[in-house]
Amino acid sequence: MTTSQLINRRDLDFLLYEVMDAQSLFTRDRYVDHSRETFDAAIDTAIKIAETRYAPHNRRADENEPTFDGRHVTMLPEVAEAAAAFADAGFLAATHDADWGGMQLPVTIAQSCLAVFRAANVGSSAYSFLSSANANLIRAFGSEDQKARFLPPMLAGKWFGTMALTEPHAGSSVPDIRTIATPMADGRYRIRGNKIFISGGDHEMGENIVHLVLARLPDAPPGARGVSLFLVPKFRVGADGAVGARNDVTLAGLIHKMGYRGTTSTMLNFGENDQCEGELIGEPNRGLNLMFHMMNEARIGVGMGSTMLGYTAYLHALDYARTRLQGRPIEHKDPSAPQVPIIEHADVRRMLLAQKSYVEGALALCLYAARLSDDARTSSAPDTRAQADSLLALLTPIVKSFPAQYCLAANDLAIQVHGGYGYTRDYPVEQFYRDNRLNALHEGTHGIQGIDLLGRKVGDAQGKTLDLLRARIDATIASARQLDDARFLSWSNMLAQAWEDIDVTTRTLLEVVMRDKRQGLANASVYLEMFGHGVIAWMWLQQACAAFRGLKRTQTAQQDVDFYNGKLAACGYFMNWELPKAGPQHALLRRLDDAALNMNHASF
Amino acid sequence: MTTSQLINRRDLDFLLYEVMDAQSLFTRDRYVDHSRETFDAAIDTAIKIAETRYAPHNRRADENEPTFDGRHVTMLPEVAEAAAAFADAGFLAATHDADWGGMQLPVTIAQSCLAVFRAANVGSSAYSFLSSANANLIRAFGSEDQKARFLPPMLAGKWFGTMALTEPHAGSSVPDIRTIATPMADGRYRIRGNKIFISGGDHEMGENIVHLVLARLPDAPPGARGVSLFLVPKFRVGADGAVGARNDVTLAGLIHKMGYRGTTSTMLNFGENDQCEGELIGEPNRGLNLMFHMMNEARIGVGMGSTMLGYTAYLHALDYARTRLQGRPIEHKDPSAPQVPIIEHADVRRMLLAQKSYVEGALALCLYAARLSDDARTSSAPDTRAQADSLLALLTPIVKSFPAQYCLAANDLAIQVHGGYGYTRDYPVEQFYRDNRLNALHEGTHGIQGIDLLGRKVGDAQGKTLDLLRARIDATIASARQLDDARFLSWSNMLAQAWEDIDVTTRTLLEVVMRDKRQGLANASVYLEMFGHGVIAWMWLQQACAAFRGLKRTQTAQQDVDFYNGKLAACGYFMNWELPKAGPQHALLRRLDDAALNMNHASF
Repeated sequence: MTTSQLINRRDLDFLLYEVMDAQSLFTRDRYVDHSRETFDAAIDTAIKIAETRYAPHNRRADENEPTFDGRHVTMLPEVAEAAAAFADAGFLAATHDADWGGMQLPVTIAQSCLAVFRAANVGSSAYSFLSSANANLIRAFGSEDQKARFLPPMLAGKWFGTMALTEPHAGSSVPDIRTIATPMADGRYRIRGNKIFISGGDHEMGENIVHLVLARLPDAPPGARGVSLFLVPKFRVGADGAVGARNDVTLAGLIHKMGYRGTTSTMLNFGENDQCEGELIGEPNRGLNLMFHMMNEARIGVGMGSTMLGYTAYLHALDYARTRLQGRPIEHKDPSAPQVPIIEHADVRRMLLAQKSYVEGALALCLYAARLSDDARTSSAPDTRAQADSLLALLTPIVKSFPAQYCLAANDLAIQVHGGYGYTRDYPVEQFYRDNRLNALHEGTHGIQGIDLLGRKVGDAQGKTLDLLRARIDATIASARQLDDARFLSWSNMLAQAWEDIDVTTRTLLEVVMRDKRQGLANASVYLEMFGHGVIAWMWLQQACAAFRGLKRTQTAQQDVDFYNGKLAACGYFMNWELPKAGPQHALLRRLDDAALNMNHASF
Repeated sequence: MTTSQLINRRDLDFLLYEVMDAQSLFTRDRYVDHSRETFDAAIDTAIKIAETRYAPHNRRADENEPTFDGRHVTMLPEVAEAAAAFADAGFLAATHDADWGGMQLPVTIAQSCLAVFRAANVGSSAYSFLSSANANLIRAFGSEDQKARFLPPMLAGKWFGTMALTEPHAGSSVPDIRTIATPMADGRYRIRGNKIFISGGDHEMGENIVHLVLARLPDAPPGARGVSLFLVPKFRVGADGAVGARNDVTLAGLIHKMGYRGTTSTMLNFGENDQCEGELIGEPNRGLNLMFHMMNEARIGVGMGSTMLGYTAYLHALDYARTRLQGRPIEHKDPSAPQVPIIEHADVRRMLLAQKSYVEGALALCLYAARLSDDARTSSAPDTRAQADSLLALLTPIVKSFPAQYCLAANDLAIQVHGGYGYTRDYPVEQFYRDNRLNALHEGTHGIQGIDLLGRKVGDAQGKTLDLLRARIDATIASARQLDDARFLSWSNMLAQAWEDIDVTTRTLLEVVMRDKRQGLANASVYLEMFGHGVIAWMWLQQACAAFRGLKRTQTAQQDVDFYNGKLAACGYFMNWELPKAGPQHALLRRLDDAALNMNHASF
């Protein structure tokens, strides 16, 4: 067992094999060549590369942002070296077919591998993740010709990729984009427009950068139904896949951020000289659908990234609390007694327990989402596939938003555990905080996630998807009750009551949404947060059940006993300290509190 | 009325003259030469200097931290220019006697003036604030000789000052300091030890830096009762007050922080060559008492600083929300309709309302604390003085902690209102956030404030101080009920219930603290947060009552009507959205929840 400050490997194994039943994946046709050993080897490799190639320059990359001299972007050489090691180990193609040179890993295991890079260095790893997401979209929607030309160099790490959605005047209102794609005689398109906040939008790594650009055809209808998606490379790509001349894509400037500083955030001009060429991917005017397919993956990625920034910060805080001596037990203050490790102070344990409950709860949810993704793709039963797909869509706003809010809170607590030292740049926790603050903003803000959940997802299929989720939660509750343990009885009752409450609140609000979206969705962010707590409480009851089974096994080693007891304690904490926060939220949601809705602008 | 992004002047005037009754100060002997006009002039001057000398280089100071070449500290020249303008306008001596060249302002008005510097540039203004705090301590506890030699150059801005408490191994456990002060033949002391996190600990501004250093006499008893306080200047000060040779105080290095970057944070070595000379201030072994006298002022300063960082961020977010166009009303999504200002979206108004309720509530509390400070010093009635002193001591942990937590939350929301732009360094809100994160750490962490409140303050004088607070709250409730308005009846009932709940919880916990400090104080941080919400809700009911009276006046201008209605809306928001958060906190406090207390270290 490796001791790592990126992830608690014992916890990861617990989640994969004692909670998520990852071993059942071996029996699927697609993974028949895999085993626990190959999965472990992939994760070990990821940890090794993350620790040797990514973590060492995390702070240096923060302090030495990429610069742009008007022609070229300069960044630390370590970034390209890390990306090469990542590609060489096969992680760009982690889930791709072996026939395409991929590792053909299930999403659950691939996400476990990728998680540790996010913990080690979120800024440097973003380039490879964006390329991978880009390649996944090409794999899903590209023509055979596009796949043949673009995928091999991208999966080999020779070409990088981006997603170029946002425009300065449109922001989150993506359908308002104005970039225009004019058909050329040869079937390609001339692209003209400006994009902003394009991560990895320019750099000198690799031989090419492939932008996935949202644009409108000249005759497209207004709004969402008139948006198409285009492949626009920095260097033109010939019919034979060879890299040609520079395309008319120029870097207008780099954006400087609070954190995530290692990742270039760019303003890009497409077609300033009317020489920008691109090719359509998928059907015309279907660009947003394609992008949303990507976006759902991207949102799981954001959730996992946010989780891991909180997770590694928690491990750092834990280490600090165990070694930093300060003060004495509050009940005997003899000033000549030696100082004690600060973990001896109840308030420090409170902060660590909160962090543990957030980050391990969030990691469980991200892996659960990954497992649903696997079930949607590779389960042999069509029903299971369809159910997993629906459940994943329902849970995506939570996977995106819970970690972005609460693992950020964990980062904040990790600073607090460090005291004044946590505020200095001599310790890594302040950077983790700054890096993580992005995650509530990109790939859909909290506000947008709330409207997605309440305005679309929970009412989907006449509420059948929500029923499906409830059925799974009820199954967990039923098995917890069978354990014949007072704690589990209490937690089961709390979780059951929480979901009864969510049910009533949801039905109340959906009725309002039907007749008045404005009123019904006014407090959607509160609904999102409340729903998220219900989901994470379920994740904790699942983990507690698995820990209980672990403790019942004979000859459990002491460190396993401690580990399992930690899971029970964190479950208890979440049920008793966190879940009750939803009470006042239900009250205000149900009474359709109109404080925000009716606030007069002039009265601020 | 100036429109400023530092403070809403209409709000400040409302708080001073419609809520805090600042006009009653004119009748006091000490302020008989003052009037509304002189108060206004002082505040106008402060805003003008803050806007012209401090705000313009706030970002530049963040991006160009002070550097140390081994001999000298270099920083932006604007910092010294700003400090000179501050001193020239008399703000260093804002509350000092006119005979000493002071402005002889009440604390309430002085704090109002100082507030805007904190909003404009917290890093650059810290040097002057630290000097002022240092001078206030010398005024209170220095000998006549010390006052004569040190105060004039300090109050004139020629010498700067620091507070040098913290040592690397001791941190928050101040009584564990090891710095030694050995008596010399001439009555002075030789100082030897290392200090860390000394803000403003070195720079090239002015002619001298006077450190107030906590140290132990060789024969001092261990712990808090063996700590003395010393004046240790960077350059020796002769019997005639002349600046002499360099003292043996050396800068070991600068500490680099997440924010507050404009203020040097230093590691100082005293007496490396055994040539560091200092003089005792006050009685031997009474240093902590003197320092705590300062600390209480410092904590109000931290509260005000934290409040103002949240306040200015709110004003920036409000301005952005009113001007940034994005999206359309959720109920009619015609994509060809023009985009609307984002303040039209209910979720943006929710975030602004939360910010308003936090920052204006916190400002009211800080000014209330300043008013108590005035009453404690200058009221003609001894009873009023004594009561004000006790109340101020009771409320200090809230004045320190509520803004540090909730005005930081306001900073976070200000970023969120700005969307992706808020995360960039092109907008000021990310810096306000980073700057404000310090305030939960220095001058006593949240954990320490919680123990101070529950372990010392609420039980003080057999609970009589708490009774006094309750009596004042009850008076507000009684006058709100007399307004014969349904909203006020509802808010009064909520506030009364909140304080009934606090009363029960307090009595429950104090009984436990009596017999078992460890158990009774385990969740003191939760108690602190819950108590803070009760206090701020009271501040809001006071403001709402004043707004109601304002609305009843005939011929209220439309902009005043809007302003007063905003106060009512924010009061309603705080009562309905914030106060209920205390419910689950009472439950866990009363059941003496032991999750944190009994967590096994090995199980993390």
